[in-house]
Amino acid sequence: MLDDMDSSIRLLSVGTALPGPPVGNAELARRFGMDQLWVQWVDAFVGTRTRHLAVDLDSGEVRYSLADLGTTAGRGALAEAGLTGADVDLVVLGTATPDNLMPATVNVIADRLGIDGVPTFQLQSGCAGAFQALDVARRLMAAGGYRTALVLGGDVIAKHYDLDMDLRSLPPAELVNVALFGDGAGAAVLSCAPVDDGAETTVLRTVLTRLTGKDRAPGQVLEWFGPADHEPGRTGSREDYKAIEESVPAMAEEILKELLDELGWTATDVDYLLPPQLSGRMTDRITTRLDVPGAQEISVVAETGNNANALPFQQLARVLPRLVDGDRVLGIAVESSKWIKAGFALERV
Amino acid sequence: MLDDMDSSIRLLSVGTALPGPPVGNAELARRFGMDQLWVQWVDAFVGTRTRHLAVDLDSGEVRYSLADLGTTAGRGALAEAGLTGADVDLVVLGTATPDNLMPATVNVIADRLGIDGVPTFQLQSGCAGAFQALDVARRLMAAGGYRTALVLGGDVIAKHYDLDMDLRSLPPAELVNVALFGDGAGAAVLSCAPVDDGAETTVLRTVLTRLTGKDRAPGQVLEWFGPADHEPGRTGSREDYKAIEESVPAMAEEILKELLDELGWTATDVDYLLPPQLSGRMTDRITTRLDVPGAQEISVVAETGNNANALPFQQLARVLPRLVDGDRVLGIAVESSKWIKAGFALERV
Repeated sequence: MLDDMDSSIRLLSVGTALPGPPVGNAELARRFGMDQLWVQWVDAFVGTRTRHLAVDLDSGEVRYSLADLGTTAGRGALAEAGLTGADVDLVVLGTATPDNLMPATVNVIADRLGIDGVPTFQLQSGCAGAFQALDVARRLMAAGGYRTALVLGGDVIAKHYDLDMDLRSLPPAELVNVALFGDGAGAAVLSCAPVDDGAETTVLRTVLTRLTGKDRAPGQVLEWFGPADHEPGRTGSREDYKAIEESVPAMAEEILKELLDELGWTATDVDYLLPPQLSGRMTDRITTRLDVPGAQEISVVAETGNNANALPFQQLARVLPRLVDGDRVLGIAVESSKWIKAGFALERV
Repeated sequence: MLDDMDSSIRLLSVGTALPGPPVGNAELARRFGMDQLWVQWVDAFVGTRTRHLAVDLDSGEVRYSLADLGTTAGRGALAEAGLTGADVDLVVLGTATPDNLMPATVNVIADRLGIDGVPTFQLQSGCAGAFQALDVARRLMAAGGYRTALVLGGDVIAKHYDLDMDLRSLPPAELVNVALFGDGAGAAVLSCAPVDDGAETTVLRTVLTRLTGKDRAPGQVLEWFGPADHEPGRTGSREDYKAIEESVPAMAEEILKELLDELGWTATDVDYLLPPQLSGRMTDRITTRLDVPGAQEISVVAETGNNANALPFQQLARVLPRLVDGDRVLGIAVESSKWIKAGFALERV
């Protein structure tokens, strides 16, 4: 049972992958024919300075697939843990933007990493997908039968990133998307193998993922098209930024409270806070509202862009090397599609 | 731990949904301008007589979404178990064809069924998705914290079902797809609540799901398009039917053996066999090869078409009412996308 075993699920290592060099706001403006005013507007009201893109802005070539980025991140995480694909007996990927509907991208990544003959699961989710993947992996390990899980998350927006769009004709909600999103992947190795006496380790104390969408309209919709239903001009993406701005900070606060209550921790026990990463500016607002004054904030979105299911791994990669005995970490995310609360807690022991 | 608890995960009920009336081969032929010879060819070499489609063949209107079908199936399963959405504390959906990338269709279904405040997971997979959903749900229940899970599977091919296509110009592999696939959904309620003494119940003994794709090319690819990468004329679907015909019967045999070995059963212990449901004819060939002579075969594909993740639930709905004390059931599926083995075992006790 998980309640008896939660102390035994450990986070061994993290790997990340970002495609190409960082793309600044001025470069985006140049590519899409926007002026200096737009750059200033993005700097001030979005707060995201750079992002990484799988598509080359000049040639339009898609240079990285999710499988490419996930393989790099997974390889990095395995190497850091001193393991190979042959050691992995469970793989879970969270993504909103798989390369194809079939085969699931998790299986392409597994094959490239030399992983075979084991269960592989791919969870379809927006910003909560990485948390869902961590949750499914740790619970499956707690149920028995698995020792080493590779957990992945990532997103590639190339199929929705139209280089031919005329930004000057776009409504504001779509204009902001160009500055907001980016591509990337991340991976973590979880283990429930016994630890040598006296060895320090990072324990995954809990993961929270909970639909909170009762009768609420989606805050974000991302469509896919098949050959039979595609109509030129459809953007396939709708965001209700008013609802998102209203709901996300309050939901983040509720997640913080739920995590602390479950763990029996108080806000002053938290050493590192990994807040939701919608945009640089939204993250600032949320962190202020969360009010965990003793904790160091670990945010990446201003540099990585919102690369969705890659974000928690990018944050983990920054915090993991800093942890010392006794440190406590909380990660929080809100998926605004149909309103999912997500969070996790780590403790260095 | 699952090993100690497997006898306590029970299958309470099953619900199914098929869109509209059955569509026969002659009706397909009429709609797409094919002749009587084609109808005879489908009858003889595909062996699928009818299928149900979410799209109306005459008007082109898409009348059912996956969320519609999943909600109907889920409502049916809950009603049969004497439960409501408020009783459900875990929801898992397997599908290859979600309505949108975000929100995940599982959350739309959950909301319509009055389910909220609980974890919801959507697994992206082809024919193995229903098995993966059953496996994730039972292991999460075994790890503790959940009592009643709604497990769903289903697929809607409308976005890939082009009513404007000219069948006479299609290569054979695409021609067969028109006859092969259909739409549908299914649902099951799993419970780990204690059973009254003496009450008969159906136990989910095991679920198998295992990537077996090492260095093998996918047997099936299904693409999705975004606004930025859609090119008119791309079908988005590729099948290697030669590889599928070669591999699926052999893999089905391996799955049968793995299930029997794990359970300590012999082939003569099996009362009902739910074989893979690629097409009427393929299923016949696989069942002959599996050679479980004492078992009654439960197949649906000749009537439902290959509706992928709905199929296992359609089979379960037929077998469940027939079970008497001591009956043993094996279900087997092969996902040919990147080669996944899948199976489950039930026992009436």
